[in-house]
Amino acid sequence: MPLRPSVPPTVAVRVVVDDSPETAAALTARIAEHGGSLRTLSTVRRLPSDDGAPAGAELEIEVEGIDEAALIAALEALPSVRSTRLTRALDRVFGKRVIVVGGGAQVAQVALGAVSEADRHNLRGEKISVDTIPLVGEDAIAAAVRAVADLPRARLLVLAGSIMGGDITRAARELREHGIPIIALNMAGSITSEVDLVVSDPVQAGTMAVMAIADTATFDLERQRGRRY
Amino acid sequence: MPLRPSVPPTVAVRVVVDDSPETAAALTARIAEHGGSLRTLSTVRRLPSDDGAPAGAELEIEVEGIDEAALIAALEALPSVRSTRLTRALDRVFGKRVIVVGGGAQVAQVALGAVSEADRHNLRGEKISVDTIPLVGEDAIAAAVRAVADLPRARLLVLAGSIMGGDITRAARELREHGIPIIALNMAGSITSEVDLVVSDPVQAGTMAVMAIADTATFDLERQRGRRY
Repeated sequence: MPLRPSVPPTVAVRVVVDDSPETAAALTARIAEHGGSLRTLSTVRRLPSDDGAPAGAELEIEVEGIDEAALIAALEALPSVRSTRLTRALDRVFGKRVIVVGGGAQVAQVALGAVSEADRHNLRGEKISVDTIPLVGEDAIAAAVRAVADLPRARLLVLAGSIMGGDITRAARELREHGIPIIALNMAGSITSEVDLVVSDPVQAGTMAVMAIADTATFDLERQRGRRY
Repeated sequence: MPLRPSVPPTVAVRVVVDDSPETAAALTARIAEHGGSLRTLSTVRRLPSDDGAPAGAELEIEVEGIDEAALIAALEALPSVRSTRLTRALDRVFGKRVIVVGGGAQVAQVALGAVSEADRHNLRGEKISVDTIPLVGEDAIAAAVRAVADLPRARLLVLAGSIMGGDITRAARELREHGIPIIALNMAGSITSEVDLVVSDPVQAGTMAVMAIADTATFDLERQRGRRY
C-alpha cells in the first residue's frame, strides 16, 4: 500500500464567470482543446445577479498540461468568462494534509503534536497542514473516515478517541485500501486491529503522523506497521 | 461584509474515468445537458495504465441542480466513465472551516481552543472543522492568507504569530474584501490594524473564531469589529 506518488505541477487560475450549467462545459471544452486536463475546480463564491447582469460565480481551477499564458488566453476568449487571474496551486501553499478525526479533547492533543512537528518540517521546506474535526458518534465518524478519501491532498488519518469500532472499523479498512494509512490512539473497540500503527500518547501520535508523510523525516511507516507504542 | 450565504445542496459522486484532457470536457458537457452545474471537481487519485488499459483517474465531483439517480445514469452512459458511486458532499461531512495560519507554538494553542469549542457545537448538530498550517516568513504566510480565498468552505482565518505586517497585511485586506473575516492574536506589526478582531489569548482566539461561524452560538463578529481582548 504505497503512499500517493507526487503528481505533475498544475497551473492555478481564479476565474469569474457567468453562472450557468453551460459554463463549466465551455471551460473544460476550451481547456481540452488546448491539451490541458482539468484537475481541480472549486466554486469559491456565488455572485448574485446585479443590475441586469446574470448571476456569476468565482471558480478556482487547476489545470495540468498547459502553461499559464496559454491557459489565461484560452479562457479570456470565452464569452462567459468575466475575468481571470493567476493564483497558486493549493498544494504549493498548503501542501500535504494530516487529517485528525475524533473526540475534541484527544483531537486537540493530537493537533498539538502534529502542528509542532509540522512547524519543524515546514521550516526546512516541507508544506504540511494539520486539519481536524471533532465529531461524536459512529455514523458521523465513519462518514468522515470514508470522506478522507475524497479530500484533496489528504495523506494520512489519525483517529483520536476512546472507543471506536463497528462501521468506523469497516470505513478504516476501505480508506486504507484507497492508499491512505491510519494511525489510531490506543483505545477500546476493534479499530486498533485495522490501522497501521497504534500510539497511546496523542501528542506522539500527531508527531509520528507528520513524520510519516514528511520527506524531510526518516520515519518509515512501512517498517512500523502493526506496532503499538 | 456578510459571511458567505448558505448554498443549495449538491449531489456528490466518485467517478473512475479514463484519464485524458477530453474526459472532463465530456463529463461537464453531459452534466450540463441534464441541467446540472458542476460545483466541485477534485482529482483524488491517478491510476497508472495497466495491461493495455489507459491511465485512469478517480474524481470526486459535486453537482447542483440534478438528482442522484439522473446524475449517475448520465455519467454511466459515457464511454470514458469506468464506474461511479454516490458519496457525501464534503460540506455535509466536514462543514465550515476555520483556518489557522502562523507560528507553530501559537497555531497549536489556537487549535486547542478552536477544536474544543467546535466539539461543543458539533455535538449540537453543527459541522465545523479546524484546519491549520504552521509557516514561517512573510512570503509564505502572505501566500497562505491569499489562498484561503480559494479554499472550499473556508469561513474565517485566525492569524497566530508574534509579528506580522507588510505583504501579510495587504493579503489580509484582500481576503476580507473577499468576505472572509480575520481574527489575529495581539502581536507586533501592522496586521492588528487590518483585522476584524484582536485577541491576546490564543485559546480564546480559537474559541471566538468557532463561535463567530457557528449557527449554534450567539457571538456576532459584526458587533465585535475593531475590538481588542
